[in-house]
Amino acid sequence: MGIVKGVILGIEPRSTFVDLTHGIAAQDVWQGAFALAAAAPWFPRGTIHLAVVDPGVGTERSAVVVQTDRALYLAPDNGLLTLALEVVPAMAAWRLDRPEFFLPRVGRTFHGRDVFAPVAATLATGRPPDALGTPMDPADLVRLPIPPVHEEGDGRTASVLHVDHFGNLVTGFRPEHLVGRKVRAVEAGGCTLPLGRVYQDVPRDEILALWGSFDYLEIAQNQGNAARTLGLGKGDPVRVVLEPR
Amino acid sequence: MGIVKGVILGIEPRSTFVDLTHGIAAQDVWQGAFALAAAAPWFPRGTIHLAVVDPGVGTERSAVVVQTDRALYLAPDNGLLTLALEVVPAMAAWRLDRPEFFLPRVGRTFHGRDVFAPVAATLATGRPPDALGTPMDPADLVRLPIPPVHEEGDGRTASVLHVDHFGNLVTGFRPEHLVGRKVRAVEAGGCTLPLGRVYQDVPRDEILALWGSFDYLEIAQNQGNAARTLGLGKGDPVRVVLEPR
Amino acid sequence: MGIVKGVILGIEPRSTFVDLTHGIAAQDVWQGAFALAAAAPWFPRGTIHLAVVDPGVGTERSAVVVQTDRALYLAPDNGLLTLALEVVPAMAAWRLDRPEFFLPRVGRTFHGRDVFAPVAATLATGRPPDALGTPMDPADLVRLPIPPVHEEGDGRTASVLHVDHFGNLVTGFRPEHLVGRKVRAVEAGGCTLPLGRVYQDVPRDEILALWGSFDYLEIAQNQGNAARTLGLGKGDPVRVVLEPR
Repeated sequence: MGIVKGVILGIEPRSTFVDLTHGIAAQDVWQGAFALAAAAPWFPRGTIHLAVVDPGVGTERSAVVVQTDRALYLAPDNGLLTLALEVVPAMAAWRLDRPEFFLPRVGRTFHGRDVFAPVAATLATGRPPDALGTPMDPADLVRLPIPPVHEEGDGRTASVLHVDHFGNLVTGFRPEHLVGRKVRAVEAGGCTLPLGRVYQDVPRDEILALWGSFDYLEIAQNQGNAARTLGLGKGDPVRVVLEPR
Repeated sequence: MGIVKGVILGIEPRSTFVDLTHGIAAQDVWQGAFALAAAAPWFPRGTIHLAVVDPGVGTERSAVVVQTDRALYLAPDNGLLTLALEVVPAMAAWRLDRPEFFLPRVGRTFHGRDVFAPVAATLATGRPPDALGTPMDPADLVRLPIPPVHEEGDGRTASVLHVDHFGNLVTGFRPEHLVGRKVRAVEAGGCTLPLGRVYQDVPRDEILALWGSFDYLEIAQNQGNAARTLGLGKGDPVRVVLEPR
Repeated sequence: MGIVKGVILGIEPRSTFVDLTHGIAAQDVWQGAFALAAAAPWFPRGTIHLAVVDPGVGTERSAVVVQTDRALYLAPDNGLLTLALEVVPAMAAWRLDRPEFFLPRVGRTFHGRDVFAPVAATLATGRPPDALGTPMDPADLVRLPIPPVHEEGDGRTASVLHVDHFGNLVTGFRPEHLVGRKVRAVEAGGCTLPLGRVYQDVPRDEILALWGSFDYLEIAQNQGNAARTLGLGKGDPVRVVLEPR
């Protein structure tokens, strides 16, 4: 949102901005959480990640700043950081409760502009988080529930966490769920899919599973949109069938 | 549009860019006007706002630069600055009539690239507007009609000015229309709505009115899309019922 | 994609980014090619154009860097540079085959992050392309077929190359196809259209042909969407009828 950057530039004109994505659906905290996690390892040390997906704006939910070993995260304390903090653990956290660092007049509906932007800019000038808020235990940050992976014999069941821009279905399977086992097939939407390495391991329009670029098992259609073709979306179940030991 | 920035960087490589929005519908001058007004107070002094929503490109409409006490605005003279200049009044204006500051070959359909970009970059290098055009009276700038607010006893009627990214309906009511009066209810799309302070003043999926972040009365649905739910859009009437004095 | 910029900033923090477009349909190499060609003449000398539309990611297709007299282009060797290299011819090219310049662990599905971003950043630090890959003959770069223009007496037939954001139909006709001849009319979608100079040469909602800002003949609707109104899209035929000599 351009206005947030305008406020930041008024405080720290040397800021460099990167928009992580323009594709978060309105008020979809989980989708924002996924985008932050995907980006977490790839930005330079010292990056200030400012994220606002905030259906509870103006209510009692806190605004927080969280320090990891690489970066600072500013966000509403509504679970938006859940997945990023799985990738880069929180080392410290603060509640943003010092209005002297906010804009002079804070409204009730656009804290991105009135609270997060001025605090991000103040951090960018080099001011430490300690000056801007009250320390809290990172374990007290609100977390979204992460859908579990179920085991049953040689089967494992997880669900779709995210549908990306290409219609690829990102599932909850990570390599640690399948350690030492060989995948025989992946079942989703009534189809049995092979496990491949690249999209073109199957003919055009065919669907496969493969390990995606964020180390989740993904379901993709070669030059197509797997979510649309399979009629699947977030929360739908995906099953991995393992070779017997 | 990336090409406009490419031209600017060729003239002033130290430029910092902020995209105000990527959501203006093609040729919707009013929507562009709203975005400029919303941003006007929040950018640093000295910002050069370059705005091109330009269905009349290549015809006799002028290109102008307008100075406010904070910023410079470059735009076609087609009303695009109407609402911003309500927020930050024009102090001076110029018609851009010096082709020596345009690209060498000006086409008829992309003045963003051929006219506005090189002029913006020249201003960014520090050249004053006086060097780039002929002074004009800001009162002569083209203005879009702003829909009026009607009074009738304890009722006030305005219309929807803008539907934002979240489906919130921004109405024409500003605080000055309701000075000293207490709102009993807001009527829109056949519904009677309460006046709240934050979205969560009503249960999830319920609709309310509240003062938005740009000081307009807005109609919003808690975690929903009010425009879609009510079937309302730009120009539709909204009525405020006041408590009797 | 923000992650690509994060990787680049980790290597060359002084980078300036311009997003050429956010409107390329997933895996539409031709659309990407068109955007690169439209931008080619307008960016400063020394620009590094990084483009990834890459349905074959992870397969044997090469990644390449191409030098023109103005700029460097990084892209998969899948035809994405076809149209840009018609505008600004290739002077030299290299295959990117030195993994020491990639990220330490290259995945199979996101070479924008793992290959192109670190190479672009290394080039931005001033390292020459010779250090990063093996020279190849630019004539060996993969090229997409460019639809031909057919002549038959006083008629010329081409096809729609591209539909832009406004619904304008960009055809394959360039000025060189019509040298010394006068256009009587343009036929498309069963309609006979006049050749104009600006959109407003016809009344609102009427359709015309005109020379667009990239020197292609375009079909546009004054304040409307010609593609939608005519029901035409990429690949559909357009005929120019010339005045007899």
